[in-house]
Amino acid sequence: MKRFALNSATTKRWPLPDLVAGCVDAGVSGVGLWREDLAANGMNGIEGAAALVRDAGLTVTSLCRGGFFDAPGWLDENRRAIDEAAAVGAPVLVLVSGGLPAGRRDLDAARAHVGEALGKLVPHALATGVRLAVEPLHPMFCSDRCVVASLRQALDLAGPYPPEAVGVVVDTYHLWWDDQVWAQIERAGRENRIACFQVADWVTPLPAGVLLGRGLPGTGCVDLRRFREAVDAAGYVGPIEVEVFAEEVWSRPGRAVLDEAIAGYLAHVA
Amino acid sequence: MKRFALNSATTKRWPLPDLVAGCVDAGVSGVGLWREDLAANGMNGIEGAAALVRDAGLTVTSLCRGGFFDAPGWLDENRRAIDEAAAVGAPVLVLVSGGLPAGRRDLDAARAHVGEALGKLVPHALATGVRLAVEPLHPMFCSDRCVVASLRQALDLAGPYPPEAVGVVVDTYHLWWDDQVWAQIERAGRENRIACFQVADWVTPLPAGVLLGRGLPGTGCVDLRRFREAVDAAGYVGPIEVEVFAEEVWSRPGRAVLDEAIAGYLAHVA
Repeated sequence: MKRFALNSATTKRWPLPDLVAGCVDAGVSGVGLWREDLAANGMNGIEGAAALVRDAGLTVTSLCRGGFFDAPGWLDENRRAIDEAAAVGAPVLVLVSGGLPAGRRDLDAARAHVGEALGKLVPHALATGVRLAVEPLHPMFCSDRCVVASLRQALDLAGPYPPEAVGVVVDTYHLWWDDQVWAQIERAGRENRIACFQVADWVTPLPAGVLLGRGLPGTGCVDLRRFREAVDAAGYVGPIEVEVFAEEVWSRPGRAVLDEAIAGYLAHVA
Repeated sequence: MKRFALNSATTKRWPLPDLVAGCVDAGVSGVGLWREDLAANGMNGIEGAAALVRDAGLTVTSLCRGGFFDAPGWLDENRRAIDEAAAVGAPVLVLVSGGLPAGRRDLDAARAHVGEALGKLVPHALATGVRLAVEPLHPMFCSDRCVVASLRQALDLAGPYPPEAVGVVVDTYHLWWDDQVWAQIERAGRENRIACFQVADWVTPLPAGVLLGRGLPGTGCVDLRRFREAVDAAGYVGPIEVEVFAEEVWSRPGRAVLDEAIAGYLAHVA
């Protein structure tokens, strides 16, 4: 249980104060947060949210998310996201890089732009001590959410920058289909790039829009333990976040979901 | 137009006699067929369907499909599919390899089984002169439809067998996100494995179940011409099938869809 962390997206409708209390009660010590959590009403700003979490003895494992480098104003928005990660004590800012610009078909150009965008953010990351984590998303999100579609590609994009500034996210939901992922996890360890490890299961049928189709650990077909053993073997000793987006999960009480996430983690990941 | 072929899945509700007449009228000389087309009422069996197509002067470019090696009775079913391809004069049988067996998480084993299944079918393919074409499907279909999720993987699976017995399908819809696909198309040409080239566009949002979300050429974000140029450069000189599954496309008259498919092909592929 020491490495288990709840990503707040899993319990999207659980207000942060309740989530914090629930985690403490359940013996969970790490939480992955979203910028929306920090901006929510009643938080007294980021400092208030940071204090709430800190005073409860919890660690913020990551902040989601920066990225979307195809959006207007992306540079300032990402600098703000880095500042928020620093303010809330998150060591890692997860980056979802954005899809193809509207009406464009040039994936190579979009991917090159991600690399350049990282370069523009690296100085601020180093200055604040927040590590950027490039997240490869499942290829079904390639056009509209993230042109980075494999771990190999994420590592290639991170390559030019210091590992303490740019790492990668290993998320089982996005990578489980890829037979090259094991070699790439090994490489990620060797290159000291594993900044974040997130766990969700693959369940079908996918819902319309495909964003909210994930399963809690153990409810799908991903060999989650193989992933955990692979990141361990690659030298990763950090937290393991359960991050599930699913309407069916969100519709249930936060505490019940947390208990299921823990049970699934213990049975299928740990 | 010489290389354009209509895959009958694009005009799913157009009965084969109407499709054949429509193709002749539109100057289309190649059709990709499905086993369902051959089994449909009024066809007088496969020989009847074969005669209908042949007498109209059309060429059958491929038959869809064999595969689903996780299903009971897959070996006999695939032998029958090979026989049907031979009977209808299709040089190629497209194989959709099937997903993970229910309740299983071992992708490596499922993929190894595909390789073994190919080996069991190769003698019959060689005896009948029907080439098996392993189709890599988009990774979003990996669990429930096809564990072969990249062109590299399809080529690796085909590798042990003679190219005249086992080739691969290059389908833009399934492969467009993969930055390794260009090198793999080159390899596929070098290894003489390109058995079939299919074209569809990627459009979002995806519908529930994600099967019926394809777009006619030009309606999405895939650089289709780059694919056509890549298979050409790899030495492929065969037909180019437009194969789109989409409820919105199926709901329209077959001839209107065929005209749009031709226009999209000429503007974005040829």
